[in-house]
Amino acid sequence: MYLAKVYVMYKESVLDPQGEAVKKAIHKLDYEEVADVRMGKYFELKIAKSDRDVSDVVEDICNKLLSNVNMESYRYEIMEEE
Amino acid sequence: MYLAKVYVMYKESVLDPQGEAVKKAIHKLDYEEVADVRMGKYFELKIAKSDRDVSDVVEDICNKLLSNVNMESYRYEIMEEE
Repeated sequence: MYLAKVYVMYKESVLDPQGEAVKKAIHKLDYEEVADVRMGKYFELKIAKSDRDVSDVVEDICNKLLSNVNMESYRYEIMEEE
Repeated sequence: MYLAKVYVMYKESVLDPQGEAVKKAIHKLDYEEVADVRMGKYFELKIAKSDRDVSDVVEDICNKLLSNVNMESYRYEIMEEE
């Protein structure tokens, strides 16, 4: 079994309204030292071994489903589980 | 400047409807080998150095704002940026 950890964030060039909203809320808690906040999605996928390459499977799922390739970028890590 | 990476997920005991929905969509792409999907929130916080301990700042922000402590658990990593 594999465990894939996927991180999906807005591209740097895209305004992150949620991140801005969270930053404002943090400043209301008096944590002015927080200079920037970016918010994204995080997925953990458990993937059984198959005849397909697990990286290809994860890439395809990221491109087709987990991220909007026009506005978001993704990265992932794949670990083998005992 | 510090970079804090925060991961917020539903607790294991809590049903993850979004994760279930994503899993169904993945299976429609014919990736039956994906056995389980958990979905959460991911934050990157840039935090300037201050007289407060950065871990205390991140903990307090996680407990008060970024996670619902009844249903979600969080973990974080803090790195120092050049």
